[in-house]
Amino acid sequence: MSTIQMLKAAEKRLKGHARRTPMLTSPFLDDIAGRRVLVKAECLQHTGSFKYRGAWSAISALPKEVRRNGVIAYSSGNHAQGVALAASQHKIKAVIVMPSDAPKIKIDNTKALGAKVVLYDRETESREEAAEKANADGSLTLIKPFDDPEVIAGQGSTGIEIVFQAKDLKVRDAEVLVPTGGGGLASGIALALKEYAQLLRVRTCEPQDFDDYAHSLRAGRPVVNKRLSGSLCDAIITPTPGLLTFPILNRLAGPGMVVTEDECLHAMALAFHRLRIVLEPGGAAGLAAALFHGDQIDGDAVIAVATGGNVDKEVFEMALAKFGDI
Amino acid sequence: MSTIQMLKAAEKRLKGHARRTPMLTSPFLDDIAGRRVLVKAECLQHTGSFKYRGAWSAISALPKEVRRNGVIAYSSGNHAQGVALAASQHKIKAVIVMPSDAPKIKIDNTKALGAKVVLYDRETESREEAAEKANADGSLTLIKPFDDPEVIAGQGSTGIEIVFQAKDLKVRDAEVLVPTGGGGLASGIALALKEYAQLLRVRTCEPQDFDDYAHSLRAGRPVVNKRLSGSLCDAIITPTPGLLTFPILNRLAGPGMVVTEDECLHAMALAFHRLRIVLEPGGAAGLAAALFHGDQIDGDAVIAVATGGNVDKEVFEMALAKFGDI
Repeated sequence: MSTIQMLKAAEKRLKGHARRTPMLTSPFLDDIAGRRVLVKAECLQHTGSFKYRGAWSAISALPKEVRRNGVIAYSSGNHAQGVALAASQHKIKAVIVMPSDAPKIKIDNTKALGAKVVLYDRETESREEAAEKANADGSLTLIKPFDDPEVIAGQGSTGIEIVFQAKDLKVRDAEVLVPTGGGGLASGIALALKEYAQLLRVRTCEPQDFDDYAHSLRAGRPVVNKRLSGSLCDAIITPTPGLLTFPILNRLAGPGMVVTEDECLHAMALAFHRLRIVLEPGGAAGLAAALFHGDQIDGDAVIAVATGGNVDKEVFEMALAKFGDI
Repeated sequence: MSTIQMLKAAEKRLKGHARRTPMLTSPFLDDIAGRRVLVKAECLQHTGSFKYRGAWSAISALPKEVRRNGVIAYSSGNHAQGVALAASQHKIKAVIVMPSDAPKIKIDNTKALGAKVVLYDRETESREEAAEKANADGSLTLIKPFDDPEVIAGQGSTGIEIVFQAKDLKVRDAEVLVPTGGGGLASGIALALKEYAQLLRVRTCEPQDFDDYAHSLRAGRPVVNKRLSGSLCDAIITPTPGLLTFPILNRLAGPGMVVTEDECLHAMALAFHRLRIVLEPGGAAGLAAALFHGDQIDGDAVIAVATGGNVDKEVFEMALAKFGDI
């Protein structure tokens, strides 16, 4: 279980490595939302998403003699790039297991960040089998994407920054809207808020049909989505909450929020015009909830975490074509 | 003449108002440039450009009894929005004189930031006549876009941030590439570097055919461009260097750099993919110089100021269509 002590230790290890991302605002977004909107721009983190924080935290927490043998991770997206960069900065080997039909650009990026990419065929092989082959002698340590105490602790450093940035902007009492897949970031932030700012409260934000956290928080136990793939919000699609993350959010988060894909695309276009940042659809789910579901939010201000900005130009062009006229 | 004391005083007044914009990096950009590239993301400043700094500085420096009567500015672009927001935050009137054929979105934005917009017909009227009418009793103070010591001092706060952020990233000796129109930002930064970091040196960056600074620095006296309009880089198009800014840059800047429009569009696409920020063409001129004219630069690292991100979606789409495949 992640504790506040682990979180504080992770924050200390991340100093000088993770970027302190800015908290952005725009009077135009305030007008749409009907309240002040603060946007924590984690799309500006190294490798374009908050995932770098958890990856660095987990790798830096390994005992030296374990770490030097290298790490392995499964991911076709943001976690892959976070682990690849954090490993290369530690001067250790990273093996990333990716499906052979992953976008070429993501494979290329992960390689360019210094990782060895092992491809597997989704039709004929499981990623676990592929990983076992790549780690035959068992020397590589698996870095999980969310259900790991040190990963949660690393993501929690985002929460500590939010607390102080909100205070600077005179926001003391607000909901913190977090795009949520497995729940690593949301639970890390929730732990930070509990320690430092009890008047700030996490709300998970998910796309329609992939709202396992919303269902699970309502039911009080983990529920599995019926659909497992086929969303523009690929970065935050998981079948069910994590074993470590769900109990934290069940205890500390408010009711889950749900947004449509079109609302995410609309939020991306507004972030382009009003904040001059690039968001991917899943990374815009919190901002979409802030702008278009204000009736479910309490308070004069709201904080939306913009979790990532790794988006193909075609998807970005779609957002501008649909919602870019203002 | 701007002195370092004015600059320090402006920086103090801007504390808690101007955003400390992040210094971004990407290993992919380092690879293209063949050296480390640091990008000062002023597109994330309030109103989407560094202009807010100078506007706030000049307005906050006015004697109270003068300031309370309000301010006036000519601009169809970033300076208009900077003055509008800074004035509304001081709770004073701002009148912005804009050509009636300015993009509707820019007129709407300036109004939405609380300014009174006075339109004039470029065919039948000069902006000075329009301004005279709008300021018949002479009570409004003109806030110039660059040739004003307090504006230069305000823009210089960007330079002070650059010094400390470069130091954090262990960069001591580098050229600082600044997209340059009238030269307010470049001269403010040059003054800051002279005081705090003599191993950092400003280089002006301009689009082809609008390279009055490059010509003027070579000639040692102000030279006027032959072309006066018709560039995608509208934010940094001025006919000739400023009376206050040119002597500063003539003394402190290196040779001027010149980039093409296509290089600016290319830099915008790379900033989209690699930094997840939105740049306008003129705002990307420094990054374009860093990436594509490295042969004219000295040192293991280079700092590019990304000055603004107020771009129409059509121009952004053009950049992605031309250079967005990576």
